[in-house]
Amino acid sequence: MSAIIPSTLVALLHGPDQPGLVARVSGWIFERGGNILHADQHRDMEAGVFFQRVEWVPPTSADAGTMAQEFEVMGRSLGMNTHVADRTRRARVALFVSKFDHCFHDLLLRWKTGDYAADFVVVVSNHPDLADAARGYGVPFHHLPVTPATKSEAEARQLALLRELKVDLVVMARYMQVLSAEFLRSAPPVINIHHSFLPAFAGGKPYHQAYERGVKLIGATAHYATAVLDDGPIIQQDVARVNHRQEVQDLVRVGRDLERLVLAQAVRVHLENRVLVYGKRTVVFE
Amino acid sequence: MSAIIPSTLVALLHGPDQPGLVARVSGWIFERGGNILHADQHRDMEAGVFFQRVEWVPPTSADAGTMAQEFEVMGRSLGMNTHVADRTRRARVALFVSKFDHCFHDLLLRWKTGDYAADFVVVVSNHPDLADAARGYGVPFHHLPVTPATKSEAEARQLALLRELKVDLVVMARYMQVLSAEFLRSAPPVINIHHSFLPAFAGGKPYHQAYERGVKLIGATAHYATAVLDDGPIIQQDVARVNHRQEVQDLVRVGRDLERLVLAQAVRVHLENRVLVYGKRTVVFE
Amino acid sequence: MSAIIPSTLVALLHGPDQPGLVARVSGWIFERGGNILHADQHRDMEAGVFFQRVEWVPPTSADAGTMAQEFEVMGRSLGMNTHVADRTRRARVALFVSKFDHCFHDLLLRWKTGDYAADFVVVVSNHPDLADAARGYGVPFHHLPVTPATKSEAEARQLALLRELKVDLVVMARYMQVLSAEFLRSAPPVINIHHSFLPAFAGGKPYHQAYERGVKLIGATAHYATAVLDDGPIIQQDVARVNHRQEVQDLVRVGRDLERLVLAQAVRVHLENRVLVYGKRTVVFE
Amino acid sequence: MSAIIPSTLVALLHGPDQPGLVARVSGWIFERGGNILHADQHRDMEAGVFFQRVEWVPPTSADAGTMAQEFEVMGRSLGMNTHVADRTRRARVALFVSKFDHCFHDLLLRWKTGDYAADFVVVVSNHPDLADAARGYGVPFHHLPVTPATKSEAEARQLALLRELKVDLVVMARYMQVLSAEFLRSAPPVINIHHSFLPAFAGGKPYHQAYERGVKLIGATAHYATAVLDDGPIIQQDVARVNHRQEVQDLVRVGRDLERLVLAQAVRVHLENRVLVYGKRTVVFE
Repeated sequence: MSAIIPSTLVALLHGPDQPGLVARVSGWIFERGGNILHADQHRDMEAGVFFQRVEWVPPTSADAGTMAQEFEVMGRSLGMNTHVADRTRRARVALFVSKFDHCFHDLLLRWKTGDYAADFVVVVSNHPDLADAARGYGVPFHHLPVTPATKSEAEARQLALLRELKVDLVVMARYMQVLSAEFLRSAPPVINIHHSFLPAFAGGKPYHQAYERGVKLIGATAHYATAVLDDGPIIQQDVARVNHRQEVQDLVRVGRDLERLVLAQAVRVHLENRVLVYGKRTVVFE
Repeated sequence: MSAIIPSTLVALLHGPDQPGLVARVSGWIFERGGNILHADQHRDMEAGVFFQRVEWVPPTSADAGTMAQEFEVMGRSLGMNTHVADRTRRARVALFVSKFDHCFHDLLLRWKTGDYAADFVVVVSNHPDLADAARGYGVPFHHLPVTPATKSEAEARQLALLRELKVDLVVMARYMQVLSAEFLRSAPPVINIHHSFLPAFAGGKPYHQAYERGVKLIGATAHYATAVLDDGPIIQQDVARVNHRQEVQDLVRVGRDLERLVLAQAVRVHLENRVLVYGKRTVVFE
Repeated sequence: MSAIIPSTLVALLHGPDQPGLVARVSGWIFERGGNILHADQHRDMEAGVFFQRVEWVPPTSADAGTMAQEFEVMGRSLGMNTHVADRTRRARVALFVSKFDHCFHDLLLRWKTGDYAADFVVVVSNHPDLADAARGYGVPFHHLPVTPATKSEAEARQLALLRELKVDLVVMARYMQVLSAEFLRSAPPVINIHHSFLPAFAGGKPYHQAYERGVKLIGATAHYATAVLDDGPIIQQDVARVNHRQEVQDLVRVGRDLERLVLAQAVRVHLENRVLVYGKRTVVFE
Repeated sequence: MSAIIPSTLVALLHGPDQPGLVARVSGWIFERGGNILHADQHRDMEAGVFFQRVEWVPPTSADAGTMAQEFEVMGRSLGMNTHVADRTRRARVALFVSKFDHCFHDLLLRWKTGDYAADFVVVVSNHPDLADAARGYGVPFHHLPVTPATKSEAEARQLALLRELKVDLVVMARYMQVLSAEFLRSAPPVINIHHSFLPAFAGGKPYHQAYERGVKLIGATAHYATAVLDDGPIIQQDVARVNHRQEVQDLVRVGRDLERLVLAQAVRVHLENRVLVYGKRTVVFE
């Protein structure tokens, strides 16, 4: 939990392309005494959309919160969808889990190592199995069982909890429930890990599907959850080679490592404000 | 074209598992003075199927052709689907192409380097573009135009050509026509390269599909062609990482390298008698 | 810890090649009512050495221990270096650690998940930091400080502990001490993880070396420890892509994932009796 | 040879970091009516060095050559090492080869496909073998034999040829001679491909070295040639997995694909003005 947090502001902008955007944004920061550390931009030539991530150190004389607000005003005046994050403010993360614990342990161990400038503030599960383990990491655990009959009530309690704890990000670490469109409309961003190379093998039992089809690589995909199952904007994907000697249980074992790595990378780039979503696609500034 | 061809026999067997198969097969070869160089076997535990590839040097006293036939009799007496190839006999390959030339050049250059113990005996194309290039490699070129109206006639001429030239393998090196079920029933095995990570993005314009979906990896798949498009048993697959900076034309460029490598590897393992097909899956002994 | 342990025997053999080895070994097992599940062999053509791994189910009538001993006698009569493991007997593993905990947690979590048919019987460390964590996994922790003055005494105590606990394998999970040649002569096999792509960047601070050299990939290498530092037979290696944006601390972070995966894979293949060492090379039957 | 060449200017700058560099550079271009397409920058925090690649469309009213010169003056006034390339001007490339032809064919086929906005203007070889093949691609071939006695004379003739043909880049496509420090001082930039994962296995016969050491991955490295053999700044590297079944000749075969891909990628990023060298490291803006 000791990651060095640079005292920087990070802006993510996107909107209709126009000449001079790089100059205007960098000029605005320079004139106010800010020092740009990183500035990445991208143009979608076909769609005519401009994307930018810019990270800067505000002058010591300035109030970071005020400068962030003023930047947002400036960005919007350029017709840009603009969001500024203050990296000294640690994001608050909720972990949704069921019984599988590999992604759960992986994320919490990375957090303890200091990989994430964030706080894991709660573990929510529809099963009680990981209660002790969560507390071992010092994170409160909430057991909220979900049945078809109680699902909407359970989701209402989850939402209340997220609001109460001021959660900025929900990570579904192999949480084995589909979140409703209603939940997703009210919740902060939700990152899910699907255990296949999407769009191949969406839905249930992807390792069984992969085995049946006889693919030579299996994959994992981290994406933002949307109302359509396994269809949200993809943040990160990876694959591993398999062969005929490996049965379904071996694919599951190999896949656990993929799931852990891919989800951890997606959570990291999200928390570092490197991801811009537009339509079904993401721009990940790395 | 100078690959050293070992004077060996290669048997591929598969069938219902039973105790003693490894001992019986290796014993049969040993008793007849053969020397096993490689023996790989695999059991599909769930399906109860045994697979074996065994490669051996026949005794100098034996006629390889006779030993091959006797082995096939023995294998079938064990209830095994059995095929023996004499590696001193070079397989005869037909290349089907259209206008894209990257897989075409790649396969023929590997052949010239001696990577394949085979002969490329003909290039067949529905376009005349690659005629000179084929002749530059010393391979006869047949231009057989295909239109919806002439397709069945063109396929009949293709089949006649394959029979006349005693072709053992057809390689579709970005041949932009779908082969009919009738053609595939009468033709030798056909390997196709599809420019996506199947089963994702089957059908047309897979790089466009991949771009639209915003995947973070693109792929290529070599498979045996079957009557159902892009659905045949997969021999080899690979992927490459892409990012938001890459437009469709960049995916096409990166994909060309994938297609070349994946198709070349699939052709190599097929020609080395390393591939066993069962159902929609393959066992590739490497 | 619930891995299903097949009631099988696994033999590893290697020695001078001669005709009929596959037939003799498989025949011996078949005649005694054993059922071969897997049999992999390899010939080093240049050196004239034969290698085999064969795994079989003994007949229910036989005593596994007796059959193992008889197989070893038979193998040696063929001039083969022969070792048979009974997979129903769980190997006993000692973990050597210092302060870094990523490989430590990774191995113990995999063990708890049931990936390894083995028992982690002790954690030995020259620092007290991981004592509580080890006990949290239910594994006894021994703090044995090492200074230049006390090294040989500490190693003697380590060896006594390994003997007392009947340890079969020592895993150095980022243990930051060099084990002496004397220790290695008396100890069971020792697997070490080095945080570079050996033979590049042997010795200290490999991530700093990699950064200075400007490589585009960083690596990790799991190998058997020998008297010469970072020079033992390699079991597994992997790499990850890095770029100019990544400073040394980023290489360290990315490298942690490599170290975890590579060490875990090496430990798995060793525990499944898949690794044969000869000279500075290994044959890994997978 | 039909790559669409954008009418753009590309500047590469590096020098001591100071506040406002991004703003000043982008402001300069904006004020003169230029439209920035891409702007990437990087800071080496430890060394305090700023790097930038900026690509822009000059206003139609401006002369591109004049704007390039003025930008260089401006960049130098900021203390930056500055170079501007006009992408409408096709770079002129010389290919140095010996007998191996896989990289030779690969680069020339990519060129014919239109992957490179450059002209391959000459093939130079110390052997006559590839003369016909070069002419088949329409590229003049110069046979300049090299012996220890004639090496300095041969290099003088090579340099004269490079000057005469206004060559911008030399690519050593498995050219089996070491270029002298004198040659390198006078020549344009030289990219070499080494068939190992440098710094492992520098010098001769790297695949044999890799085989002897028993590594589990083999590699290839493209780097700028410097006076110290295999020690120049690395542009690109990649690896492929190998196993105990693969003998040296198999490593050579697998390595050919690595060499082709890695060299082709290095040549592409160089020709697109994406590479900045400092010390032994490179910044590759991709």
